[in-house]
Amino acid sequence: MQFSARNKLQGTVKEVRVGAVMAIVMVQVGENVIESAITKDAVEEMKLKAGDKVTVVVKSTSVMIMK
Amino acid sequence: MQFSARNKLQGTVKEVRVGAVMAIVMVQVGENVIESAITKDAVEEMKLKAGDKVTVVVKSTSVMIMK
Amino acid sequence: MQFSARNKLQGTVKEVRVGAVMAIVMVQVGENVIESAITKDAVEEMKLKAGDKVTVVVKSTSVMIMK
Amino acid sequence: MQFSARNKLQGTVKEVRVGAVMAIVMVQVGENVIESAITKDAVEEMKLKAGDKVTVVVKSTSVMIMK
Amino acid sequence: MQFSARNKLQGTVKEVRVGAVMAIVMVQVGENVIESAITKDAVEEMKLKAGDKVTVVVKSTSVMIMK
Amino acid sequence: MQFSARNKLQGTVKEVRVGAVMAIVMVQVGENVIESAITKDAVEEMKLKAGDKVTVVVKSTSVMIMK
Repeated sequence: MQFSARNKLQGTVKEVRVGAVMAIVMVQVGENVIESAITKDAVEEMKLKAGDKVTVVVKSTSVMIMK
Repeated sequence: MQFSARNKLQGTVKEVRVGAVMAIVMVQVGENVIESAITKDAVEEMKLKAGDKVTVVVKSTSVMIMK
Repeated sequence: MQFSARNKLQGTVKEVRVGAVMAIVMVQVGENVIESAITKDAVEEMKLKAGDKVTVVVKSTSVMIMK
Repeated sequence: MQFSARNKLQGTVKEVRVGAVMAIVMVQVGENVIESAITKDAVEEMKLKAGDKVTVVVKSTSVMIMK
Repeated sequence: MQFSARNKLQGTVKEVRVGAVMAIVMVQVGENVIESAITKDAVEEMKLKAGDKVTVVVKSTSVMIMK
Repeated sequence: MQFSARNKLQGTVKEVRVGAVMAIVMVQVGENVIESAITKDAVEEMKLKAGDKVTVVVKSTSVMIMK
């Protein structure tokens, strides 16, 4: 499987917080923690929980640069 | 200065490629290379070039998870 | 500090509404009110409240045109 | 016609720059200039040009806040 | 009315779920169900409900490809 | 493999147009053609070409509704 999204970072889920329809997933990637806002349905279908090995995916058009 | 975007990763620019109106900026962040597609104007105004110390910024609603 | 996101509009927070994990922030920018959906965590860390002077930021790849 | 995108700002096209597949459209909205990166095909089908009265549209999940 | 967003798909709302500030709208488009996360305010102002004929809109820079 | 992005539509590539750094990929999905703007690098690494069976992926926070 190949995917056009250019950024795929290996990490480990640190925390999952579920709201009414949205959820927050915190993923440890190297020395950084990356935060993702996805649907509650996605969290439940994927059974995402702390300790899971996951890949964080970001499309390059969503990435900004500060200097 | 505080910024609502939750993901701010320190890195070093590896490569800048400029097209007609868009540009690609590759940034080394720890062991990962993160790719950003921004406007050519942004690259020129910021004088972005290989070796620059930068912060990669991603809004959490743009982050996806694979498992 | 320079930022690749091309749209940075000065405004004043009119209203903040906080949900379980997400929040809505309304910002008066000139004659327009701009609405932002960010995480509840961002609102709390930034202590965002009505009356705050803020900058609304939008990446140009997120902007559409109707005619 | 009703549209779920929360931000719809009236403006006037100031400049259109067309690349190979993408294009940049600058729109004067009150005292601000808003920049949009859309496809070249969209610019051509809409015949977008300086002076056009347009509406700039942004989904609220794409809006960030700096303070 | 012309719109720069390149993807406009006709469909019928199957389900609407409303959270504290966000909402999920499921739309049947041909044989697929497309899920949209929009604000609760948008759902209420548009009076979105199952059975409504709608157009699903996606900017081409938000579309990814897997192979 | 499970993926948090909620919209995954099966289709066939109709056309690929490559610019300096970005590219446009048109995919037939049922009766609709869906347009994607991805990097030229993604197109080349995936060897995307007309006739390829692909999956179009869209995060639900990128989907809007018109009525």
